[in-house]
Amino acid sequence: MEKITTSIITIGDELLIGQTIDTNSAWIAQQLNAMGIWVHRRVAIGDIKEDILEALEKEAAVSNIVLITGGLGPTADDITKPTLCTYFNTRLVQNEAALANVLHIFESRGLPILQRNLDQAMVPESCTVIDNKRGTAPGMWFEKNGKIYVSMPGVPHEMQGMMESYVLPQLTQHFQTPAVIHQTLITSGMGESFVAERLVNFEAKLPPHVKLAYLPSYSLLKLRLTAFGQDKVSVAAEVSVLFHEMKALLSDIVVTDQDITIGEVLGQLLKERNKTVATAESCTGGLIASWITAVPGSSAYFKGSVVAYAYQTKEEVLGVKKSTLAAEGAVSEAVVREMVAGALQLLDTDYAIAVSGIMGPDGGTPEKPVGTVWVAAGSKDKVNAVKFQLRYDRERNTQMTAVYAMNELRKLILE
Amino acid sequence: MEKITTSIITIGDELLIGQTIDTNSAWIAQQLNAMGIWVHRRVAIGDIKEDILEALEKEAAVSNIVLITGGLGPTADDITKPTLCTYFNTRLVQNEAALANVLHIFESRGLPILQRNLDQAMVPESCTVIDNKRGTAPGMWFEKNGKIYVSMPGVPHEMQGMMESYVLPQLTQHFQTPAVIHQTLITSGMGESFVAERLVNFEAKLPPHVKLAYLPSYSLLKLRLTAFGQDKVSVAAEVSVLFHEMKALLSDIVVTDQDITIGEVLGQLLKERNKTVATAESCTGGLIASWITAVPGSSAYFKGSVVAYAYQTKEEVLGVKKSTLAAEGAVSEAVVREMVAGALQLLDTDYAIAVSGIMGPDGGTPEKPVGTVWVAAGSKDKVNAVKFQLRYDRERNTQMTAVYAMNELRKLILE
Repeated sequence: MEKITTSIITIGDELLIGQTIDTNSAWIAQQLNAMGIWVHRRVAIGDIKEDILEALEKEAAVSNIVLITGGLGPTADDITKPTLCTYFNTRLVQNEAALANVLHIFESRGLPILQRNLDQAMVPESCTVIDNKRGTAPGMWFEKNGKIYVSMPGVPHEMQGMMESYVLPQLTQHFQTPAVIHQTLITSGMGESFVAERLVNFEAKLPPHVKLAYLPSYSLLKLRLTAFGQDKVSVAAEVSVLFHEMKALLSDIVVTDQDITIGEVLGQLLKERNKTVATAESCTGGLIASWITAVPGSSAYFKGSVVAYAYQTKEEVLGVKKSTLAAEGAVSEAVVREMVAGALQLLDTDYAIAVSGIMGPDGGTPEKPVGTVWVAAGSKDKVNAVKFQLRYDRERNTQMTAVYAMNELRKLILE
Repeated sequence: MEKITTSIITIGDELLIGQTIDTNSAWIAQQLNAMGIWVHRRVAIGDIKEDILEALEKEAAVSNIVLITGGLGPTADDITKPTLCTYFNTRLVQNEAALANVLHIFESRGLPILQRNLDQAMVPESCTVIDNKRGTAPGMWFEKNGKIYVSMPGVPHEMQGMMESYVLPQLTQHFQTPAVIHQTLITSGMGESFVAERLVNFEAKLPPHVKLAYLPSYSLLKLRLTAFGQDKVSVAAEVSVLFHEMKALLSDIVVTDQDITIGEVLGQLLKERNKTVATAESCTGGLIASWITAVPGSSAYFKGSVVAYAYQTKEEVLGVKKSTLAAEGAVSEAVVREMVAGALQLLDTDYAIAVSGIMGPDGGTPEKPVGTVWVAAGSKDKVNAVKFQLRYDRERNTQMTAVYAMNELRKLILE
């Protein structure tokens, strides 16, 4: 079976000057990959006519499908549509459905309409227009010399809506795609090279159509097996055998055999046991709570949190003793243990997580340098507390701390 | 002055299947841009020898500098170094400094060293080795036919360390770079097209070496003026005049004239006034607190938060009345007002922000569909409450809510 390949072109100066992080490419790649279409290359270019024309030509030469995002907004820095007209040798015409959509959106928001908004209903004559149910800029589907080109807005939820409702179903009709199966194992507590060493023989005997990727993510490691083939059922069966073999080799360090977040892992454990959790956060400032609540349905097991940044909040809300703070300092085993106890009582939950640390860039001392962090996870019966020494910037230190703390609760629940 | 251009090549299957979001490119682009080097193209390719060779050749043909990240890890899916040897017609040799670094890292962590770790000290003979102070994989600097190539690890903090300590200073020595000045204005409360309409005459008269970009970010809009020139002082003076003119045209909707986050905006306002803030969060689950505390030094004005997900937490910790919850429901003006009052009292602050909403995908009712959210910001003297109707997914709804709520407090402080 021929491999179907895609190039993704993202257009916009904001991507080249680093003002915007490109999340669209990753989302698109996930969707295509799941249906057996391989993303061959991703290219980001600016709002420059020659660069866009060159990229269209180059990418169409190496891929079956060229997906383009960005450059369709109502402001003057967007030149994608005229450039598409040049490339496809066509002209802009008004599209009635797109015009009705623009008018409807402005009316429903009670806003006056401007010429530049009406211009969004102008599209290249040779394209098939793709409805934008979430915004004013329509999408455009072109075919030329057996290649497919799709131009979509750069706004993530508008692009995603078009992909789901139109582009992905159309691509399935156009191409006979291979079966692709991914299975992901997440481990903790062992570095990438040591895991790789354990898997040397396993990796050596993998057939060529099965690949193993190592994807470190904070203190966790994702191991992803990917297999391609003709028939979905036989590929799935083959991957399943290999995946279980890999899992057995790593049984002592497995966190989960699903591709989910640590928040979802905790959610599953708590829901299965009908238990509840709270957090008492100092240095993570609410990040752990926000990760727990990012999971739909988390209200079944999450009751709340206290973000206790000030000493006063630790004492008055969480009941940490003034004497403990004075004797041990806020970043100490004794304080995180009292924070766990305080959260369990105040929020009336089965489990609580507590963290206190120095995330940087300032605030370190010789005894407790930047990156010193205490995390604790516990129930009324038992509290485990661990110290970590992190070596990154404020943002990464905070995220590492959140993962470590949530992983400590996971281990405690499974003890 | 000749324009200095860069291509960024990111290597790794994880970027093409969407498992990893590329944050390196944005960071690199910001650094280069600040020193007047233009990122011309960004390309992401997989761990495939032919694709790497082709990308090196193509990008060196259009750019002065080729920066490569990724593909240098200790596991088997990394083939970048042998491919660089092919491209530069050289061979791998052991580098003593890199070897000493690998040994030191493993010793200091008390870990046994494996052959695959030792292999990280093997580098192409023709390169200049760049120290990695944050990990085991060294960076590599090559020159060929007047072009510069730099290969760095994909781990963000390792790459950043090398860029700051070696690559950026070296590039400054190699190239005579133009002066570049950016100035950013952030507005709220008016859509991109309406702002553009106000700026039609302003934009029309901008000289060709000054560009205006519109960068929507949740409910805020960033307007960035960028100018290039020979002399930094005269470019800065020219941009300053234009920037103040633009700011005057938008004075009623300006949030800040700096390129900072809404958390930093709030932090500045609170610090100037010597005031403190707390949050009482339901649907944002701690996100507002985590954004406030993402700012170094936020302990000067942030005391803490209560994440009140359960009714019980709203009542027992924040003092929301059971009768209010029963009569109005958790997502209501009355409840967010009581949450503000509860947070002000419990956490003893000058200001408090409260939010309660239905973020989806489930939990909506005909009267309060998914996306209904109440936000309130207040002090002991005054509380402003506003209702929003959001239309995105859970993650985006949560982030939009956080921005709206923080912006409400900003407006209240300035009333």
